Amino acid sequence: MFDLDASMVVIENLRRVATLCGDALEGDTVLGVRNGRVRFAGPRASLPREFAAAARHDAGGRLLTPALIDCHTHPAFVHARADEWRMKLAGASYEEIASRGGGILSSAAHVRGAGNDRLAEATLRHLRALRAHGVAVVECKSGYGLSLEHELRQLRAIAWAAEQAGVKAIGTCLAAHALPAERRGSPELREQYLREVCEQILPQAAAARLALRADVFCERGAFSVEEARRVAQAARACGLALTVHADQLSHSGGARLAAELGAQSADHLEYSDEADIAAMQASGTAAVLLPGSTFFLRQERWPLARRMLDAGLNVALSTDFNPGSSPVCNPAFIMHLAVTRLGMTPEESLRAFTRGAAAALGLDGLEWGCIQAGSRAAFAIWDVEHEQELPYYAGSNLCAGVITCRGWQD
Amino acid sequence: MFDLDASMVVIENLRRVATLCGDALEGDTVLGVRNGRVRFAGPRASLPREFAAAARHDAGGRLLTPALIDCHTHPAFVHARADEWRMKLAGASYEEIASRGGGILSSAAHVRGAGNDRLAEATLRHLRALRAHGVAVVECKSGYGLSLEHELRQLRAIAWAAEQAGVKAIGTCLAAHALPAERRGSPELREQYLREVCEQILPQAAAARLALRADVFCERGAFSVEEARRVAQAARACGLALTVHADQLSHSGGARLAAELGAQSADHLEYSDEADIAAMQASGTAAVLLPGSTFFLRQERWPLARRMLDAGLNVALSTDFNPGSSPVCNPAFIMHLAVTRLGMTPEESLRAFTRGAAAALGLDGLEWGCIQAGSRAAFAIWDVEHEQELPYYAGSNLCAGVITCRGWQD
Repeated sequence: MFDLDASMVVIENLRRVATLCGDALEGDTVLGVRNGRVRFAGPRASLPREFAAAARHDAGGRLLTPALIDCHTHPAFVHARADEWRMKLAGASYEEIASRGGGILSSAAHVRGAGNDRLAEATLRHLRALRAHGVAVVECKSGYGLSLEHELRQLRAIAWAAEQAGVKAIGTCLAAHALPAERRGSPELREQYLREVCEQILPQAAAARLALRADVFCERGAFSVEEARRVAQAARACGLALTVHADQLSHSGGARLAAELGAQSADHLEYSDEADIAAMQASGTAAVLLPGSTFFLRQERWPLARRMLDAGLNVALSTDFNPGSSPVCNPAFIMHLAVTRLGMTPEESLRAFTRGAAAALGLDGLEWGCIQAGSRAAFAIWDVEHEQELPYYAGSNLCAGVITCRGWQD
Repeated sequence: MFDLDASMVVIENLRRVATLCGDALEGDTVLGVRNGRVRFAGPRASLPREFAAAARHDAGGRLLTPALIDCHTHPAFVHARADEWRMKLAGASYEEIASRGGGILSSAAHVRGAGNDRLAEATLRHLRALRAHGVAVVECKSGYGLSLEHELRQLRAIAWAAEQAGVKAIGTCLAAHALPAERRGSPELREQYLREVCEQILPQAAAARLALRADVFCERGAFSVEEARRVAQAARACGLALTVHADQLSHSGGARLAAELGAQSADHLEYSDEADIAAMQASGTAAVLLPGSTFFLRQERWPLARRMLDAGLNVALSTDFNPGSSPVCNPAFIMHLAVTRLGMTPEESLRAFTRGAAAALGLDGLEWGCIQAGSRAAFAIWDVEHEQELPYYAGSNLCAGVITCRGWQD
């Protein structure tokens, strides 16, 4: 991890630069950065004179890419659910585990029981882990608080941890992740929670600028299409952008709803069909694919990634880093799964973790996830020869560091 | 990576210590190390007075385990075979790839074409990558040289790189990995290579102490049982210990041969059956399982790990790190595969990467792969709460460093 605290920086000794817009650069390539923006990327001989006295950073002869953008994570947790995993491996059903307080409610109980310091430190550890695997921009969801107090605590922990970790966090309020334990058992209680989400949690998260987006888990056992629409409308009224956990475990209508709402993205999409893809294409809704959860849960039901790409959808990949269904903080492993399970090329998989992810988050595509004049000075360096090797070294982390330059977030 | 250059060291601020011999230690646990050996592991209040002035190392409140032992790797390569992988993903058959010079012969062509510096630097990069994933002891095979000159070059590169990387390497001569291109086409040429292996390469590798072991790839398309026996007998005559690449792609008889020879281990074993297991049990031959290659090649034929454990075999796991069939340098991901595909428990998977691997390499089981008085001062620290989480964070690297103390290899 390298936070370069200088207004003028030259990054040199680069084996290769994957720019993600135009051809890769080889030969004696250098980058010139001024005030957190790339000003020059090209042969050393053409470096503008203004960089003559700039600070120098030696990239060790490595591959450089834009820093990765992880557009769907749940990092504000305090306990990995490895015990549940062992129960599942030993044959326990989802229902048995849920009856013992497992799943999202288990993570919520741990978050609620943890002090602010423990929650913040754990979140920091997770964001640092993502950064160690090449990530500089992270969409971070709440969703293990499930009450006004604890959802806001999660979002505050995320904001603090991101600053400490040197990553840019985009907070997303996922209060509509599950019905909390104390709101179960009657339609009245359910209604009370939906009102808390729509009338208190989302407005306060938005007003405090702790969240820029709202998410809802639209699935049997979570929230119906009608409930999700209601949450989304409340979120929009607060000025929040929208995203939906859609069609993960069944063809529940989440992708169609996301398209109807003009959401930034619909995420998961394992059960989405051609008509859903057409609706997303028409609305400009990005497809965020999360093969880590499919792999970890051994569901073997993969989204129609090729159809989405061929239809012209903006396709992003993300770790879905969370303590239950995708405890994977390695984007390169997600790229491996995308190449081997989703039929994406290595280049498409890297694009989906940079430009694709930027677009899914509504970030300016000229500045984020690519390397050209004007783009943000956040890079990852890798101990590989070529970007096609990122997915190749399956399940390994060959990131040698993320480099950010002063002012890159401003 | 922490190489502590002091004769007396106290490692403190430990969340938990998985000793791999007896119970894990919790509470205010410290380790006391003298001259590269653990002298004390237990509560701070009981630390012997001789450590009062010792150097201190803060483990950051993390989990500590013995450093991992990777007992089957091929790190002396200079080029990842990602191009071949893309051909395979696009539908090319093994034969098509081989006809274009792919596979082991491709790696051999690259090694032969690389200068000594490039070969050594690439090997160093690979050993550093393994160390960054928790490994301090690595069995390193040649096998991409396939001639006297180039096999010895590989073994020399391994010895140099291990010293630079701060890992202990155990060199293994795998000249009998494949028939080199220039020895193909007639039985006479084949015989010439076998003689070169038995009469020149193995004796010179042993005499120079560049290899302590010999390996042979016993498989259709590689070497027959009779040829492998001949290589093994030549190796034994030079004083080398034996290991065999056995039953990976077919029930080729390699495990049975390893048992007959009293080899230290038989490795792969995807096609080995109950009778093979019984033979290995009788001979004390360890089973080294390499699920990374099965996963990467998508063979879905897994060894009978549970039967092996239940029969009392010593079972080890290893990355099989290599540029073609298992480009995986993350032991924790191998543990994940062992738990989910081989039916091992998380504890068994960690044991197989520490004590099991030590035994497979013939290392003293009181000193290597465990933490107790007298054991070697080589540890890994992890950003997890409990050792069962090592396989849980699938495909992530949560190793925060390997700690070694002066004299640990002596």
